[in-house]
Amino acid sequence: MASSFGHLFRITTWGESHGGGVGVVVDGCPPRLKLTEADIQPDLDRRRPGQSKIVSPRQEADRVQILSGTFEGKTLGTPICMWVKNEDARPEAYSEMKEKFRPSHADFTYVAKYGIRNWQGGGRASARETIGRVAAGAIAKKILRERFGVEILACVKQVQRIVANVDPERVKFSEIESNIMRCPDQAVADKMIRLVEKMRRAGDSVGGIVEGIARGVPAGWGEPVFDKLEADLARAMLSLPASKGFEIGSGFGGIVMTGREHNDPFRARRGKVVTTSNYSGGIQGGISNGQTIYFKVAFKPVATVMHPQNTIDVQLQNTTLKGRGRHDPCVLPRAVPMVEAMTALVLADHALRQQAQCG
Amino acid sequence: MASSFGHLFRITTWGESHGGGVGVVVDGCPPRLKLTEADIQPDLDRRRPGQSKIVSPRQEADRVQILSGTFEGKTLGTPICMWVKNEDARPEAYSEMKEKFRPSHADFTYVAKYGIRNWQGGGRASARETIGRVAAGAIAKKILRERFGVEILACVKQVQRIVANVDPERVKFSEIESNIMRCPDQAVADKMIRLVEKMRRAGDSVGGIVEGIARGVPAGWGEPVFDKLEADLARAMLSLPASKGFEIGSGFGGIVMTGREHNDPFRARRGKVVTTSNYSGGIQGGISNGQTIYFKVAFKPVATVMHPQNTIDVQLQNTTLKGRGRHDPCVLPRAVPMVEAMTALVLADHALRQQAQCG
Amino acid sequence: MASSFGHLFRITTWGESHGGGVGVVVDGCPPRLKLTEADIQPDLDRRRPGQSKIVSPRQEADRVQILSGTFEGKTLGTPICMWVKNEDARPEAYSEMKEKFRPSHADFTYVAKYGIRNWQGGGRASARETIGRVAAGAIAKKILRERFGVEILACVKQVQRIVANVDPERVKFSEIESNIMRCPDQAVADKMIRLVEKMRRAGDSVGGIVEGIARGVPAGWGEPVFDKLEADLARAMLSLPASKGFEIGSGFGGIVMTGREHNDPFRARRGKVVTTSNYSGGIQGGISNGQTIYFKVAFKPVATVMHPQNTIDVQLQNTTLKGRGRHDPCVLPRAVPMVEAMTALVLADHALRQQAQCG
Amino acid sequence: MASSFGHLFRITTWGESHGGGVGVVVDGCPPRLKLTEADIQPDLDRRRPGQSKIVSPRQEADRVQILSGTFEGKTLGTPICMWVKNEDARPEAYSEMKEKFRPSHADFTYVAKYGIRNWQGGGRASARETIGRVAAGAIAKKILRERFGVEILACVKQVQRIVANVDPERVKFSEIESNIMRCPDQAVADKMIRLVEKMRRAGDSVGGIVEGIARGVPAGWGEPVFDKLEADLARAMLSLPASKGFEIGSGFGGIVMTGREHNDPFRARRGKVVTTSNYSGGIQGGISNGQTIYFKVAFKPVATVMHPQNTIDVQLQNTTLKGRGRHDPCVLPRAVPMVEAMTALVLADHALRQQAQCG
Repeated sequence: MASSFGHLFRITTWGESHGGGVGVVVDGCPPRLKLTEADIQPDLDRRRPGQSKIVSPRQEADRVQILSGTFEGKTLGTPICMWVKNEDARPEAYSEMKEKFRPSHADFTYVAKYGIRNWQGGGRASARETIGRVAAGAIAKKILRERFGVEILACVKQVQRIVANVDPERVKFSEIESNIMRCPDQAVADKMIRLVEKMRRAGDSVGGIVEGIARGVPAGWGEPVFDKLEADLARAMLSLPASKGFEIGSGFGGIVMTGREHNDPFRARRGKVVTTSNYSGGIQGGISNGQTIYFKVAFKPVATVMHPQNTIDVQLQNTTLKGRGRHDPCVLPRAVPMVEAMTALVLADHALRQQAQCG
Repeated sequence: MASSFGHLFRITTWGESHGGGVGVVVDGCPPRLKLTEADIQPDLDRRRPGQSKIVSPRQEADRVQILSGTFEGKTLGTPICMWVKNEDARPEAYSEMKEKFRPSHADFTYVAKYGIRNWQGGGRASARETIGRVAAGAIAKKILRERFGVEILACVKQVQRIVANVDPERVKFSEIESNIMRCPDQAVADKMIRLVEKMRRAGDSVGGIVEGIARGVPAGWGEPVFDKLEADLARAMLSLPASKGFEIGSGFGGIVMTGREHNDPFRARRGKVVTTSNYSGGIQGGISNGQTIYFKVAFKPVATVMHPQNTIDVQLQNTTLKGRGRHDPCVLPRAVPMVEAMTALVLADHALRQQAQCG
Repeated sequence: MASSFGHLFRITTWGESHGGGVGVVVDGCPPRLKLTEADIQPDLDRRRPGQSKIVSPRQEADRVQILSGTFEGKTLGTPICMWVKNEDARPEAYSEMKEKFRPSHADFTYVAKYGIRNWQGGGRASARETIGRVAAGAIAKKILRERFGVEILACVKQVQRIVANVDPERVKFSEIESNIMRCPDQAVADKMIRLVEKMRRAGDSVGGIVEGIARGVPAGWGEPVFDKLEADLARAMLSLPASKGFEIGSGFGGIVMTGREHNDPFRARRGKVVTTSNYSGGIQGGISNGQTIYFKVAFKPVATVMHPQNTIDVQLQNTTLKGRGRHDPCVLPRAVPMVEAMTALVLADHALRQQAQCG
Repeated sequence: MASSFGHLFRITTWGESHGGGVGVVVDGCPPRLKLTEADIQPDLDRRRPGQSKIVSPRQEADRVQILSGTFEGKTLGTPICMWVKNEDARPEAYSEMKEKFRPSHADFTYVAKYGIRNWQGGGRASARETIGRVAAGAIAKKILRERFGVEILACVKQVQRIVANVDPERVKFSEIESNIMRCPDQAVADKMIRLVEKMRRAGDSVGGIVEGIARGVPAGWGEPVFDKLEADLARAMLSLPASKGFEIGSGFGGIVMTGREHNDPFRARRGKVVTTSNYSGGIQGGISNGQTIYFKVAFKPVATVMHPQNTIDVQLQNTTLKGRGRHDPCVLPRAVPMVEAMTALVLADHALRQQAQCG
């Protein structure tokens, strides 16, 4: 069950970085939604490596194929299986990994757990697994947009110490997509790009923060006490490769405020309930309050670096390992569609759950 | 299903702050574990209000009663239902809440979702719901300790801007419990207590950080890709009342490092695998690596303050509301056993899952 | 998770026949449903032992208490915990069971599984566990009746070789409840009662068939391919103590027909779709078709008989055991409310699921 | 979630009879199991149409392809996706079905539920969906055989009124496979085959009973109270297309016996616990008791017959419809591997669950 996410809008991803391919089964998608590969491919293109000079140069077309669940361009209500073939198989590039565990990768822990691993790349722990999520997320985003009027966005908020100015209420998709960093603060984006290029040249890598945003979520989504909206978002984000932290609304920063300062006063405006501040991040008691939902996700610097590092081999002998081949100095621009996808998956699931219990 | 947590060691909490009581059903507990109320009550005493001058003065004995699942002092393998009666019912204290939504509480969102709420206190959104979690967590901690050699700890790491020095590898339970703040850094604890007392006098409140620690977890627990250990921990922590953020290992702080700096080198020491740094926080690729697991949880300042604040009433008219009665200036000391409990629930579930698939 | 049933209208039962009591948590109940103990107690009275001369003489009032989830007589949308205390504890009556495994009971298998059992009665395998189901089922029936116009019935169809004439389209609750056998065919009911009385005198027991009926279910409930309506009903019924078989519509009898004979022709009648026969039992492809749902459940003869029988003791030595004390010659009248409850639980869950995906 | 089955050994099937193909994702398979397509294909060959003169003549090779989850011929512990392409697409053969609902098929109910259906064949309700189950079941059978010493069998017990003599303790796979009916009673098998050939000539169809058998299951598998072994088996069997009934052990026949007759006496034989009769069918209180598990599944006569029958069209107008094209007079020989697969899936899941809680 560990490869499934969601209860009513439920996805199951499958596939390793090397092997027959990667994909996803979406179970519980509402019927009669217009859906073809053209709805999915754009997000996969935003996720794929090789899209710009600041991300992994792995070259894959990542063409998605819908194998089931649609008929004459519409969803049937039955499981939608989507598949992307693996093309860039270069087992020889990984022969050293057969013998050595890469530091801060999942090589060692997979062996500790399963007693076996596909050493040709990251296997199941590869970011390639997120193809299934992004494909499913594209469907979730479409449902949210067309049936519930909800808009999902994500963007790069911070790279190392470089912080962008992002207004969750107003930032536009076109602004985010206007540069290869997916940072809507253009001046800052340039600095970020320069930093990443420097890191690439140094054979090193950087981490940062992606901000996720959901606008137009009606009050009432989220299920206390364990399936609170922020709890499900936190799980969703921490399930992404390389993520190390999650905060909603004021987050860790809010702890320097007092209760008087931090509370979000309710006001009535033209018959609608609003809050005049939004430290809550659009969620109170685990349930959306109608305000914009926003949160931040920390991603560690990519673990593969082009320098020798201490590690052990499969016989548990000390050795060193130097990354070689394709160097990915910064995962953040590609993490943006991943964060969008996971956000959409959480919200679509809760939209259906709200219909079920309280509809 | 939103009141259930865990797959194999599965709990279902029930109850509101006012009504017949609060409790939990634990399903999937291994049989033949010695268990009586005496194993549960100490953690409930650490959780209950009124335990010290710096927490909520609500007075409840919170005596737990095991209603099922044990026989002659041992678990049967059948569901364990535990119940704590509500005693401190003062509906008159809440009459104003019948008409007004408290800012940054869940009053408004519960009505938005369910169209009804128990206005006599926080209802299901009350911290009182965590009694069931802490009771179940006491069982989980016992299993982890006795059957797997795993120790679970939590402590207060930060109150507002006051930060304690805590070594996850060495901190002891007795140090944590040596003061009412549950901060093992004694000098800093005193400062924290003074700050909270000042806040109480000011009718205001503070937030902070609780650090959670699990020592002795063997390599191999955690289930990629969605039930990664850090993902389940994140969900667990964000499901606690007032929590706003979660970070594992280096967390948000790790993003200022480069990949070379951040990677944890593996070394072999006397036939055992260790890492010479632990920015990963004991988890890699969603699976424990045998090192100490540590993480931080941000809690916002308590929303109830003794000052008039803008809000709306149930007719959506603007008004003000001033907290009255029991004032809780700082939830952190009571959040410590909650964080322990949720950590233990996550790990006990994954211990059983590991036995199932790879045992 | 084995003590939980349902996905959206989800129950978790707890408790053994001897101990603090038995109960249930209902999670996912829609909010704002009028609900008090008076809605639950009548079904528990129909389930309880001692209600007539043909069932177990165990004397318990089985008074239900709602501990959570309601406020001012309405459901909150939060978990509803219901509890019935155990009163009739006579451990001395069971001392022989401490040493010996009763044939065709669960004594041996519980020890084989858990390595421990509560030998004071049937423990978790006791029919007493069904109190939680019947209590939850009373809520499910109320939702189905008030919000979906669905009527749930069950009755005794057969005792040993005595078969009643029951028309699933027309049988009334008052007819079923008009005799202690809960068989609406009055003449046949008298024969059944006489047979059971004879069995009681002989210290023996009989089995039979309970028929379950759901009228007014709209077309469209049920979720292919694994949560087909008949699959969920089958699981629900086979989870009842002493049940040995389930058949929907024509069932095992339908196999002597050919396809031409067995097919149910569709006809349009005043804009509504009907079938002119109903061998399908109201379900096709796992989804309700708008016709009456009916099915049969086989219950074996009660295993406790007042005669010495071969068995083994806990040291695995051959011995004999004679039932003593309370003799229950026929479980069928008490199984009727159990079958109703499980039917209602399945349908309420699917009603909510249908609202979620296709609503 | 309705396309998933199992908790720890969890499968998700996908695909319609016409479209890109059908398949399954197996999540939770233990690692390091030797597995290639050669382990799967034989069961698919036993399931596929066109294998003999008494089943559907649809011609498909049904070649399985493993897309993920294995490496160098062994399972990785990660999700195993298996895919079979659809080849026999003849949409023109189904054009009449676009306008008319076939009686006792799922055409009408799918439209009632989803408001859309793939009318090119049975869509998701087609027996073709069971390819995924049979493929996954082949893995489950292998695990049960190699790691737990459990043997799974199924055979045709009855066709219409022709009943075979089958001894669940002794029947062999080779006997079952020795004729195209998969009935180990050779003389009876010939009669069955003649009946089916007669039905084919008459353009009609027959139903019957498949018996499922599990030998070598240790005492202790099965999870009261809702996931009892017989409950999960019942659900599994009633989720198969065309199944109408399930009975375990004595089943419906047991109700003519008294308790004294029906009880299975325990005896100790060379330190092992046996029962001298097995009316329980190897399960007591929902848990295996170490005896042979056996049960029967009723399958209705195939709904497609080559005669005009009353029905309605999509405008709800009365009309008639005559089956044409591929006529399947008897599903039973092909149902045998389906029953095996579902049995294995239930047992493999419970084997892992037992390891988890009580291992």
